[in-house]
Amino acid sequence: MVVQKIQKVVAIQKMMQGKGMGTVLVTPSSSLFFTIGRKLPQTERFNAILIPVRGRAAIVVPVLQRPLVADLEDEFDILVWDEAQDPIQLAAEFIANQQDKTVAVDGQMSAGFLLSLQNLSQDVSYFNATSLIAPLRTCKSPSELALLDDLGVRFDRIWQDFVENTSMVGMTEYEIFRRIAAIASDHGFTELAWCDVGSGPNGASPLHHWSQRKVEPGDPVVIDFAAISEGYYMDTCRTPVAHEAHEQFVEIYDIVNRAYEAAFDLVRPGVAAENIDAAARQVISTAGYGEYFIHRLGHGLGIDGHEAPYIVDGNKQLLEEGMTFSIEPGIYIPNRWGVRTENIVTVTENGARSFNQFSRELVEMQ
Amino acid sequence: MVVQKIQKVVAIQKMMQGKGMGTVLVTPSSSLFFTIGRKLPQTERFNAILIPVRGRAAIVVPVLQRPLVADLEDEFDILVWDEAQDPIQLAAEFIANQQDKTVAVDGQMSAGFLLSLQNLSQDVSYFNATSLIAPLRTCKSPSELALLDDLGVRFDRIWQDFVENTSMVGMTEYEIFRRIAAIASDHGFTELAWCDVGSGPNGASPLHHWSQRKVEPGDPVVIDFAAISEGYYMDTCRTPVAHEAHEQFVEIYDIVNRAYEAAFDLVRPGVAAENIDAAARQVISTAGYGEYFIHRLGHGLGIDGHEAPYIVDGNKQLLEEGMTFSIEPGIYIPNRWGVRTENIVTVTENGARSFNQFSRELVEMQ
Repeated sequence: MVVQKIQKVVAIQKMMQGKGMGTVLVTPSSSLFFTIGRKLPQTERFNAILIPVRGRAAIVVPVLQRPLVADLEDEFDILVWDEAQDPIQLAAEFIANQQDKTVAVDGQMSAGFLLSLQNLSQDVSYFNATSLIAPLRTCKSPSELALLDDLGVRFDRIWQDFVENTSMVGMTEYEIFRRIAAIASDHGFTELAWCDVGSGPNGASPLHHWSQRKVEPGDPVVIDFAAISEGYYMDTCRTPVAHEAHEQFVEIYDIVNRAYEAAFDLVRPGVAAENIDAAARQVISTAGYGEYFIHRLGHGLGIDGHEAPYIVDGNKQLLEEGMTFSIEPGIYIPNRWGVRTENIVTVTENGARSFNQFSRELVEMQ
Repeated sequence: MVVQKIQKVVAIQKMMQGKGMGTVLVTPSSSLFFTIGRKLPQTERFNAILIPVRGRAAIVVPVLQRPLVADLEDEFDILVWDEAQDPIQLAAEFIANQQDKTVAVDGQMSAGFLLSLQNLSQDVSYFNATSLIAPLRTCKSPSELALLDDLGVRFDRIWQDFVENTSMVGMTEYEIFRRIAAIASDHGFTELAWCDVGSGPNGASPLHHWSQRKVEPGDPVVIDFAAISEGYYMDTCRTPVAHEAHEQFVEIYDIVNRAYEAAFDLVRPGVAAENIDAAARQVISTAGYGEYFIHRLGHGLGIDGHEAPYIVDGNKQLLEEGMTFSIEPGIYIPNRWGVRTENIVTVTENGARSFNQFSRELVEMQ
């Protein structure tokens, strides 16, 4: 049991060795969830896990959060601070006690905390811990893949329920968001991590959230949502059309689908991430829409909604079995509409396998 | 109109003067909302506002977020980066072009971005911009106070609706959270910022979120929720009891109420924040429960849910008219129960005024 609770700490210590590293500092973030399997609040109150290259790790918590880590006292030193103390001082002392003064800090920590720490510990070199911890997270284990499989099946059911039982014409984007949230709740997702609904011209901005715009007949509606279960994300996007699709939209929808397939078919261990992006981009460029595909092809996914590996031009990282990421090509024509199709896939020895099985064909809804 | 859009930039530039400061760097956060009146996504993609001590400010955005700032092109230089570029390089160049190489960075920026920037710009001194911007945000304007007044009234109605039309016995904490969310939605709050429900012994941990525990007769239930409207937070807490309250609970409930009143009565311009905390703490300590009041008395509130001024031991900041913060004393008895009462108040020339008018009396619900 003790081994269980600190096995990730030991794995991080192993990554630290031979790099001249004294301490890894992890604050509330996905990396903290990875390390101790639970979440601590990310607020203006400092809390952190301090991992030395060898020996016992410590947890810094404000007194009112002590109950959240009370069961970890056998494995960690618990450094409790009360509301009038400076908690950064506790971290600075821990760092000063290590032989090596190089510290890797959580990339998701707030800059305010880092500046305070740098101020207190000026003889220390600071690095981003993400590059140290990411390799431990990137390739999913069989149990993680099983969890993602289950999430994928439940997401398929949300889509099925939505397209079969919704008439989008006249609904606002906000109402569509609420409808997706209600269906997701029926399938056990108490909250959505996000849900973006871009109808007609709003769909041409890939980061449009939602608005009170009402859907009109013929509008494509870009719907991108995500949810978390047991700490893991699932994420998906489809672009159904309200009533009948415009002829040009049918054409670009098909191009996006072919771009998806070109990327999917290229996935296998040993291929560089950027080549997967290039495969999809080539299809869209050849069709004459290259300037309208304005984002990377995909992002890794796991205990963060966006994490390594990023499927983007310039990322020469080679794919490995178990890596898990989105393939989400899109075409966005300003003032008219957008289309995006997104599945989450994992790398197997035989190629890509998608967690999402819901049809990628064009759906013309009631 | 131009003046309107950049008036906050000008106010920040005024704060920078005479401090040897070259650039203020604001990333997606409440300070960015303060500066340009809108939100940009806080993700792994870098975007920022760069404010020089004199002259024209710039906005760094990834190409797919360009539509979010398209209307600001007259007032700001828009520095767009595509997915294969390093956006931190754009910020480093802006900083290098300023005469003064001291930079104040947003305390809410991620440490990963700060480390990348420090790596690229090693001849630069870095400070936390929060101390520079907070004074511009702490004292609320009449229009901000009017907005908070409206939020307070709507929160009162949520409480009224909840206590009149809910039978807590047998409900899970999760179901109570959902019920509060549904009522809040009826009153125009599409999402809650948070809603913590701690029944019986769970209430003894001030940061307990919610669980599947069922409420039993006699349980006090600490309910703390917040919501955002037009960018501003409202936040409240009450501790109603399911059926009849235990005798000792009635006693500690009353102590917490008296602590609230002692703090409330002391509020006026010129009093130090820590003295407000001490006034409440004194009441609870005198009654013999000092060790069970384990958090600060309160926090400022506005476009952040927690912001300056913090009402905490050690904060010698003097209260000023328009400052707005919570008064939220509590007593938490491990393994038994907790109680907390929270109102948001503002400082007027005549003392405190609460935005929340819902009764602080002990409520024994159906």
